Amino acid sequence: MRLFACPCCAPFSNRQMLAPADAGRSALKRHKSGGKVSPRILDDLVAANRILATEGVVDGYGHVSMRHPDAPDRYFIARSIAPALVTRKDIVEMTLDSEAVDPNAPGSYLERYIHGEIYKARPDVTSVVHSHSPTVIPFANAKTPLRAMMHVAGFLAGRVPVFDIKDKFGPTNMLVSNRDQGAALAEVLSDRPVALMRGHGNVVTGDSVKLAVFRAVYTEVNARMQLASRDLDGPVIFIDEAEGRKCDEMIAATCERPWGLWKQKVGMK
Amino acid sequence: MRLFACPCCAPFSNRQMLAPADAGRSALKRHKSGGKVSPRILDDLVAANRILATEGVVDGYGHVSMRHPDAPDRYFIARSIAPALVTRKDIVEMTLDSEAVDPNAPGSYLERYIHGEIYKARPDVTSVVHSHSPTVIPFANAKTPLRAMMHVAGFLAGRVPVFDIKDKFGPTNMLVSNRDQGAALAEVLSDRPVALMRGHGNVVTGDSVKLAVFRAVYTEVNARMQLASRDLDGPVIFIDEAEGRKCDEMIAATCERPWGLWKQKVGMK
Amino acid sequence: MRLFACPCCAPFSNRQMLAPADAGRSALKRHKSGGKVSPRILDDLVAANRILATEGVVDGYGHVSMRHPDAPDRYFIARSIAPALVTRKDIVEMTLDSEAVDPNAPGSYLERYIHGEIYKARPDVTSVVHSHSPTVIPFANAKTPLRAMMHVAGFLAGRVPVFDIKDKFGPTNMLVSNRDQGAALAEVLSDRPVALMRGHGNVVTGDSVKLAVFRAVYTEVNARMQLASRDLDGPVIFIDEAEGRKCDEMIAATCERPWGLWKQKVGMK
Amino acid sequence: MRLFACPCCAPFSNRQMLAPADAGRSALKRHKSGGKVSPRILDDLVAANRILATEGVVDGYGHVSMRHPDAPDRYFIARSIAPALVTRKDIVEMTLDSEAVDPNAPGSYLERYIHGEIYKARPDVTSVVHSHSPTVIPFANAKTPLRAMMHVAGFLAGRVPVFDIKDKFGPTNMLVSNRDQGAALAEVLSDRPVALMRGHGNVVTGDSVKLAVFRAVYTEVNARMQLASRDLDGPVIFIDEAEGRKCDEMIAATCERPWGLWKQKVGMK
Repeated sequence: MRLFACPCCAPFSNRQMLAPADAGRSALKRHKSGGKVSPRILDDLVAANRILATEGVVDGYGHVSMRHPDAPDRYFIARSIAPALVTRKDIVEMTLDSEAVDPNAPGSYLERYIHGEIYKARPDVTSVVHSHSPTVIPFANAKTPLRAMMHVAGFLAGRVPVFDIKDKFGPTNMLVSNRDQGAALAEVLSDRPVALMRGHGNVVTGDSVKLAVFRAVYTEVNARMQLASRDLDGPVIFIDEAEGRKCDEMIAATCERPWGLWKQKVGMK
Repeated sequence: MRLFACPCCAPFSNRQMLAPADAGRSALKRHKSGGKVSPRILDDLVAANRILATEGVVDGYGHVSMRHPDAPDRYFIARSIAPALVTRKDIVEMTLDSEAVDPNAPGSYLERYIHGEIYKARPDVTSVVHSHSPTVIPFANAKTPLRAMMHVAGFLAGRVPVFDIKDKFGPTNMLVSNRDQGAALAEVLSDRPVALMRGHGNVVTGDSVKLAVFRAVYTEVNARMQLASRDLDGPVIFIDEAEGRKCDEMIAATCERPWGLWKQKVGMK
Repeated sequence: MRLFACPCCAPFSNRQMLAPADAGRSALKRHKSGGKVSPRILDDLVAANRILATEGVVDGYGHVSMRHPDAPDRYFIARSIAPALVTRKDIVEMTLDSEAVDPNAPGSYLERYIHGEIYKARPDVTSVVHSHSPTVIPFANAKTPLRAMMHVAGFLAGRVPVFDIKDKFGPTNMLVSNRDQGAALAEVLSDRPVALMRGHGNVVTGDSVKLAVFRAVYTEVNARMQLASRDLDGPVIFIDEAEGRKCDEMIAATCERPWGLWKQKVGMK
Repeated sequence: MRLFACPCCAPFSNRQMLAPADAGRSALKRHKSGGKVSPRILDDLVAANRILATEGVVDGYGHVSMRHPDAPDRYFIARSIAPALVTRKDIVEMTLDSEAVDPNAPGSYLERYIHGEIYKARPDVTSVVHSHSPTVIPFANAKTPLRAMMHVAGFLAGRVPVFDIKDKFGPTNMLVSNRDQGAALAEVLSDRPVALMRGHGNVVTGDSVKLAVFRAVYTEVNARMQLASRDLDGPVIFIDEAEGRKCDEMIAATCERPWGLWKQKVGMK
């Protein structure tokens, strides 16, 4: 039956995700909402989805979430569609256990546990991007650590950890598809802004949707630059940790400038 | 005479493909059709053509076919035009010997034997893509095997065979332009989803048009990632066969999500 | 004075190219035209200009010419503007000495001698493309010969000569800006379809505008593929000369298919 | 307070940049303007901003300035917005100390000192581009000097110096954010047209806006070509200094041709 063959993409409700035996029992409970948020705030999340697509960070896959501004134990994420197609009405509110607040909400991504578990482990994080950012994956699979090539990627100075789901869970379909796997990823992420995921992609965090998107874009841009530097004579000088801290402070504050441009490119003002 | 100089591209009818001596004899016979199929189903094949162009898998060359849903001994493929330009009326029905069911149908690709012979050898296959996917060709010509860099390319875990037409047919124009050559390619493909073709391109299969397109796109994406990984310190860790099987199952079921996006990008709903 | 500082780009007439002392003497003579050609034929040259831009072979620089279909001692080329902007009224008729037939015609490219001298040396050639095709220049400067990676670039099998203007003319501005330099380039090109130009670009020929454009596009595409293959384990197997001859025959006849697509992309039918 | 956390991007006036204690004192003085310039001249600067974005030299960051045509001690630069979004009304007039002539003008880039200090040190320069041009940064961080691959990048023949802000200023956020840092960059630039900036980007100069833009574009294009050449067998032959001088003369005079194309691409005539 298609529905169960494809739990992570078909447009189904949370109710439908129940096993047939459970479906009649209304097992999914309604959770308390964190409260209404202004359309303007949700529009940042909509813009984030589209920008990540336009800037080449996500393709048909990938997702971005935002912690509820008034309820730290809730977050928003789109139902299971391609980021480029997300509109405001596709946004679903989740608990940190990654259950939809509304049991009749359309189903979200199977990998939403990435978001919920990082929000649990990292009170400082208010937005999470997960992508298969194409130039970052080679770094996730190889031994060369991703390092900061320029000031706008200063957040990469210091350690960029790599999560290999096989270490704890053996051979899987590579998806972070339950709370335990999400928690293991959050543990590897630790207090860093970015973690790579072997054979899969990466996860990027920030204290605002804009900053998380910014970092996701420049993680990809930086990977391209570092890859190019591998063909040149070294040693290559990277942004060091002292510089990185100063860059990150400065850049965290300037992300409005590219954000304004990116929003225009996706047709939002 | 232009017609015979260019059997594979000019807009000619099958009748015209006859040698002059045969032309008057109406040698081409009408084959039994597998029956009408709904426009909706054919539209998937139209979309597939255009998506492969938009996603950079095909350029002016390349083709995609679909087995007849009700008649496994028939398949559909476009007449000989660039994939980006295909519309529903360009679709031609073929026997598995790659003869047009309607002898007056416009001529299709000279290389249609790729499709017919794979359908004969592989009852599990319902769609075939042939392309000159640009980053895959270097792997077809070199000794580095193509390997799965990420879960969505899990179908590449395990062996990706390489077909060299010279092995069996000596120096040729590299085209798979008759049944014997098509059968030789199908033999090298064996039970795998993808085979590379030395000095030429690759062939990708699936049990649906959507899945074949998905795999064709991610074969190219994966090749770019693997190429990048060659500039990094190894060893590079690939998706292994156990993971690949699980990924392939999961991903085969999720290809609706990028398909929805890709269809929008080519202006189809 | 700007006019003489910039003989190759400003919109000036041939008359203006005369030194001031000569300007009053009407020194430029009117040459006999090869005769009117149909707009449809000239439109192929217009399309060629735009296609080369769209396909990434030329940028603001580069040019393509066509031998007069009825007068082998005349050729057509645009006045000195960026190829993407060429329209039918920008086309100028030239003698093989690269003088405008009409002394009042707008000035063409300083490097038009590339075209005239190749037409003199190569009666088989009816179209010439000169570009700074970006991935081909590294091959022009390095020692790795450009070789055919796939059937559609079969014309590159065999030798691809490299012209270094310094060999005969010492340090210059690298432009082929007179008949002697054009003849030296034609000599290096010899009977080959393509020659690279060190520190500059390349020149591609064909027996039709369509074929010359086709070869220019696939020279660039092939260079990208060969470059990629350098990161893989060798030996890389190229299309050999026997295959190349067969490919070139076959492909020369199929270039209508991508041409139809490319023309649509530049808005011409 | 956001305003002071983000001095380089938020849309604030120069007055607002004062420390709170100074804000009431109207400490910023009005400077004498260099006089009105025609909209046509300012439009070159507007076009330059947009072209640099379209051609991939700048993204959300980067800036281009123009010396006042009638007052060598004044220059024009946009207020602090992404180059792609600049219109004529965003242009601000600056002293060479990089203070806005009008104290109520909207604030410009924190890094405007790059421009002011180069104009002071280099009377021959009338336009400056600063960018994070993506393929140039690897050269700024590695040991391989950037060298001229082709005639249109002849301005790179000879030495391309690299500025490392750490040499003189220790660990910073990498921004050139005061006059001393700008002067140090200008000193490293010396009499060259281009300097790279380690971990940051590059600065390109010219004696016209068109030439500075031209050089910025081809610095990026050249970096891509040189990077590609690293995968080929050497030795790679670069444009030497004698050739470079001749190329630079010739090309400086031809930059109208690509400029015309680039302007069309950004919708300006």
